[in-house]
Amino acid sequence: MSLEFPKNPGFSGFNAPFRMNIDLHDAEFEGEIPEELNGHFYRIQPDFIYPPRFSNDVPFNGDGNVTLFNFQHGRVDVKTHHVETQRYKAQKQARKALFGTYRNPRTDLDDVKGLSGGTANTNLIFHAGKLFALKEDSPPVQVDPYTLKGIDDYYTFDGKMTAKTFTAHPKIDPVNGEMIGIAYEAKGEASKDVALYAVDKQGNVCWEAWIEVPYAGMIHDFAITETHIALLVTPMAVNVEQMEQGGVHFAWDSSLPSYFGVVARNGDGTDLRWYEGPEKCATHVMNGFNDGNKIIVDMDMATGNQFPFFPSLHEQFDLQRASGRLTRITIDLDDKEATTYHTEVMYQDIGVLPRTDERYWSRPYNVGFMPCMDPTKPRSPSMAGNVGMTLNTWVRYDHDKRSSQTYFPGENYTLQECQFVPKSDDAPEGCGYLMGIANNFDTMLSELHILDAENIAAGTIAKVKLPVRLRQGVHGHWVSRNKLES
Amino acid sequence: MSLEFPKNPGFSGFNAPFRMNIDLHDAEFEGEIPEELNGHFYRIQPDFIYPPRFSNDVPFNGDGNVTLFNFQHGRVDVKTHHVETQRYKAQKQARKALFGTYRNPRTDLDDVKGLSGGTANTNLIFHAGKLFALKEDSPPVQVDPYTLKGIDDYYTFDGKMTAKTFTAHPKIDPVNGEMIGIAYEAKGEASKDVALYAVDKQGNVCWEAWIEVPYAGMIHDFAITETHIALLVTPMAVNVEQMEQGGVHFAWDSSLPSYFGVVARNGDGTDLRWYEGPEKCATHVMNGFNDGNKIIVDMDMATGNQFPFFPSLHEQFDLQRASGRLTRITIDLDDKEATTYHTEVMYQDIGVLPRTDERYWSRPYNVGFMPCMDPTKPRSPSMAGNVGMTLNTWVRYDHDKRSSQTYFPGENYTLQECQFVPKSDDAPEGCGYLMGIANNFDTMLSELHILDAENIAAGTIAKVKLPVRLRQGVHGHWVSRNKLES
Repeated sequence: MSLEFPKNPGFSGFNAPFRMNIDLHDAEFEGEIPEELNGHFYRIQPDFIYPPRFSNDVPFNGDGNVTLFNFQHGRVDVKTHHVETQRYKAQKQARKALFGTYRNPRTDLDDVKGLSGGTANTNLIFHAGKLFALKEDSPPVQVDPYTLKGIDDYYTFDGKMTAKTFTAHPKIDPVNGEMIGIAYEAKGEASKDVALYAVDKQGNVCWEAWIEVPYAGMIHDFAITETHIALLVTPMAVNVEQMEQGGVHFAWDSSLPSYFGVVARNGDGTDLRWYEGPEKCATHVMNGFNDGNKIIVDMDMATGNQFPFFPSLHEQFDLQRASGRLTRITIDLDDKEATTYHTEVMYQDIGVLPRTDERYWSRPYNVGFMPCMDPTKPRSPSMAGNVGMTLNTWVRYDHDKRSSQTYFPGENYTLQECQFVPKSDDAPEGCGYLMGIANNFDTMLSELHILDAENIAAGTIAKVKLPVRLRQGVHGHWVSRNKLES
Repeated sequence: MSLEFPKNPGFSGFNAPFRMNIDLHDAEFEGEIPEELNGHFYRIQPDFIYPPRFSNDVPFNGDGNVTLFNFQHGRVDVKTHHVETQRYKAQKQARKALFGTYRNPRTDLDDVKGLSGGTANTNLIFHAGKLFALKEDSPPVQVDPYTLKGIDDYYTFDGKMTAKTFTAHPKIDPVNGEMIGIAYEAKGEASKDVALYAVDKQGNVCWEAWIEVPYAGMIHDFAITETHIALLVTPMAVNVEQMEQGGVHFAWDSSLPSYFGVVARNGDGTDLRWYEGPEKCATHVMNGFNDGNKIIVDMDMATGNQFPFFPSLHEQFDLQRASGRLTRITIDLDDKEATTYHTEVMYQDIGVLPRTDERYWSRPYNVGFMPCMDPTKPRSPSMAGNVGMTLNTWVRYDHDKRSSQTYFPGENYTLQECQFVPKSDDAPEGCGYLMGIANNFDTMLSELHILDAENIAAGTIAKVKLPVRLRQGVHGHWVSRNKLES
């Protein structure tokens, strides 16, 4: 019997199944790779190792496949490896898919009862000497930072983390080195319980609090400030009825409001306050910070469902309403009567996956980056039939001047998330390099583009040319060699 | 400083540098992989790990990169790995090319004096429990048959092989299990000495003889019969003057005749006889055998230089004269006066890389296979700019009926060498499967096509679809699981 993936654009072109572990010594590149780039750039892509068992499954349900770019002495070695999750190992051994549709255990085969269905396909973070691959529906999976081989397929911080899930977007406080994480649906499917954790720089859980959300909705990312945690509950609601009929975990329920919650770091959670807003979607946080007693969070916010593959209950998917723009959310803790949050669209560019200079996580900051979709830029005919995000620019924002500059790689490229790397530990904010995957539709091969982060409009300083095509990635994470070896 | 390959068709499209070691568990495939396919199919491609240092270098100078297709239970796992030659290891460590142009040590850097320049990029053979990667200018390189990692980068059969070279085309006698090999330029560059070896089925050298050729020319392949070894010396002559000017090892000297030599197996070499013919080129032997006291050898013979990248001394490269056709060479040992060999073009198809059912190596046989270039078949516009062999058909020949049948994969494919695998150890001649790499110019990814060898005109029974593009390969070698594990 054959082993075939669906014949559709979701599994062809740059979406073709990748399925490999590769080792590439000394990648080919144009230009010059700065000596200062000394460390590991990790990025991750969902990559079904077996054809999905259900046609309603979503791209987010692929198995995590990590790419490691190891920079040293102006050269770069490349490695890819699947994250050895419980799910991956079971499916690899069975040589077929065993799990069902997106985050719906009712559709899993009996063989995998009791195993974690986590795909670890969303993000990576290195903290206290450990590298974790992350998916928000399950605990971290610890992998070796050099070989990417599995170390712990269900990491619970020595049993101190009792939540059944852990965010794919932990933040590291640049001052005290704590890693802050949230866990939603923390007591199981559709639970409204959210656990909050801080892990000290030695890797020990040093704070835990539990809160409850107004309804069980996706809380994909969150912000920290020096004093608070802020999170946005969006109408991408857990839908048990849909799951009971074999559907995926979420459906967009535009009848629900959004809620912006703010709770003190290191408290017991009882100070939690909710601020209501209309139907809103936002995927990611650029940064958050305190401004006096105000809490400010910048996100790529849209007015409707941003995920076409998750059902909308009350309307058709609307590309206009899905378009996110960098939006500043503000609440004033001194205003004890406030029940709503304030939003301001900061820039008109349509984009997703904002990032910042992470040395400024939780603190007042000026510089951010976002992959955007600029409809005025030319687009190569070779891109026809491409499904997925057709991001074509990276934009740098300097909030102090509310100015921006743009990198457009050319009409034959799509871009993925970008990663800022400081030139040195004490370089000024935003001084360093910007890098990320660019898929070249002329060669049908992937590249890693590297820019001077202060002058991205000038184009690449180096293009690393891979002999493979990488799929649509999710997030990346830079770890300097100092940190790796400390 | 950049690390860039020349921007030309020799290093783009399906010729793009590969440079990876990959592990692919359970490859995607259409159709059905027969349970009887149980073993390892190895094939090898030259793949420069660093940009060649000289613009006159030839594709044959790339580092050997093995692909292993591991068939079992109707599934196939795929692995690629570079052959860990002395050259590969030195260049990998230096992170640059150290060796010079094709088989010209004058152009090597001083760093590598004393190291073998062998690329092990041409063929593989499994004998007496050992897998060897082969290049005719150096001794075998032993690699692990499962991991492809290096075991011995200069294998001399426990020191019993004193020749400095070893053929890329050893033959295994199907009756006594001996591996027969020749070594040309056996005492060093331009030497006319050829060593002949037999290695018994325990892996010990059991016969050695030395002969001398009329001039030092390429002897890429040779034939064995039950009683004799036969070899063709072609005017692809070693050219020391050219090398002293920084040129490659060979130049085509059409002023030279070709010589067909015949010498008894297991003798002392003194019975050697030479039969002269006009300028001829032939790359490979389909098979050889005794017919009474006649020695018969079938090769893909052309009337002129078949290698456009090796200089021709006296004329331009001529595609018509380069075209090889399966040609039967006959000499009669009883005719003591004969000084020339007889040729008969068996079929009109233009092809290279003939193969046979290797259970019939050295014995009378009927069935052979050859990749051919059929100019009457349509060719996809997507193939424009492709350089290299544009073989578009595999042809099966049944010599008893002088009949043939053809597999044409479609206008968007080029084909590489094909490999016959018997259905079982005692299946009739030519009963089994035919497989080889097909490069798909629509997807720009490689496939392994598998056919019923008795009915190749019916098309594939399975297509294994790889997530990479493989470069122009050279030779392949099948090893059944029984043999692997014995």
